Amino acid sequence: MTGYKVKNIKITIEYDGGRYCGWQRQTHDPTIQEEIEKALKTITGQKISLIGSGRTDAGVHAHAQVANFKCDTKLNTQDFWGAINSLTPNDIVITGCEEVDDTFHARYSVKSKIYIYKLLNRPNPAALYRQYAWHIRKELNLEAMRTAITHLIGTHDFKAFEGVGSPRSHTTRCVLGASLSKEAQYLVFEIEADGFLRFMVRNIVGTLVEVGLGKLTPDDFKCILESKDRSQAGATAPAHGLFLKNVKY
Amino acid sequence: MTGYKVKNIKITIEYDGGRYCGWQRQTHDPTIQEEIEKALKTITGQKISLIGSGRTDAGVHAHAQVANFKCDTKLNTQDFWGAINSLTPNDIVITGCEEVDDTFHARYSVKSKIYIYKLLNRPNPAALYRQYAWHIRKELNLEAMRTAITHLIGTHDFKAFEGVGSPRSHTTRCVLGASLSKEAQYLVFEIEADGFLRFMVRNIVGTLVEVGLGKLTPDDFKCILESKDRSQAGATAPAHGLFLKNVKY
Repeated sequence: MTGYKVKNIKITIEYDGGRYCGWQRQTHDPTIQEEIEKALKTITGQKISLIGSGRTDAGVHAHAQVANFKCDTKLNTQDFWGAINSLTPNDIVITGCEEVDDTFHARYSVKSKIYIYKLLNRPNPAALYRQYAWHIRKELNLEAMRTAITHLIGTHDFKAFEGVGSPRSHTTRCVLGASLSKEAQYLVFEIEADGFLRFMVRNIVGTLVEVGLGKLTPDDFKCILESKDRSQAGATAPAHGLFLKNVKY
Repeated sequence: MTGYKVKNIKITIEYDGGRYCGWQRQTHDPTIQEEIEKALKTITGQKISLIGSGRTDAGVHAHAQVANFKCDTKLNTQDFWGAINSLTPNDIVITGCEEVDDTFHARYSVKSKIYIYKLLNRPNPAALYRQYAWHIRKELNLEAMRTAITHLIGTHDFKAFEGVGSPRSHTTRCVLGASLSKEAQYLVFEIEADGFLRFMVRNIVGTLVEVGLGKLTPDDFKCILESKDRSQAGATAPAHGLFLKNVKY
């Protein structure tokens, strides 16, 4: 203890997940949490644990991940903001830094999260921006995909879209909104929920693409969701098309 | 000679210039032209010279560079298209391939070219898409920049915006259109001309940014253009924000 008031500091982080084994600290592989904790150690001389809103998996990006940490320090938020950015690699950028109430907890206080998934739908793969979208060669049927998406809205058991090996107390989540929009050659799937199971968005997208390709109907999609059986759903979409867009508190 | 009719084949190429020392073949460094010529050698067994619409410099990207080559072959355009894409690195993608009239020449037949330059204008640098835009921290004055841009339109001697060490028969070019649009946090400068001098777009952008920052007025910009004196213009904007968007024939 330094004798200063313990501050609770909330940071917002943009990152390109391409080089990382995900958000969460691991023993051997580089992670975003680890890079920021290393910076905090350099800045404060203290070993500080960063609490993220939740994990993102290897290769997944974030426009605005949120985390908090507690620290007894005379440094202010502007000091931290500039110092962390100067110490982290340029694929991690702090875009917001503020002192918050002692009760704020980046994971427990989450109300909802929004993810987006980008698909490039054209015959040729991309050279430009190829790190940021999943390329689907064949034309996707948007109307069928949009019909399927409507079945996601509301409170459901999303077990069919959960990745294996991810222990949870339960697999019921409430999807507050989901949409598919077209932006030039890209399709952008956006989904907001009170929480997400591991691989949930990528498993939903993998299955939606099968609907878009005509391999499944929107009704099949509904049946898969209701089956609660992962083996019925489509493949897991690759990580590099997924972005944590926003965390709401 | 193989006895087949000599075909003149036009290809359209998207590339991420980040890893390359530009378009044009060099002795030691990797270039886009060299990668495609290597693929053509593998495909045909012949040493084929690729004619590009013009050079792009190290680090500059292209949405649609155009090139042509002549080859006596029984292969059709679909064969070439697929084969080149399978042999080139994934930051080079052939997006079009067609047989054209014998007189088509990717450089001599050019009517005009369009370049875009992307600026990210916000306080924090980018983690995402940072390979594809120049970050300007301070807020830019769009109206001043747009006023300056109007002075570019028409036929002018662009010597003030030419890079050094680039021999040309003359430095007069006709700018057919130029604009600055706002797309979310990005500013996109677009310019169409019958030809471009080396570093011309990047030198224009470097000077426009000084106008946006209030260091120069739109009238200063006009005087710099009229001075034909490179030393009066702003710094050269970095390569990674520049994209060859389109070549018109």
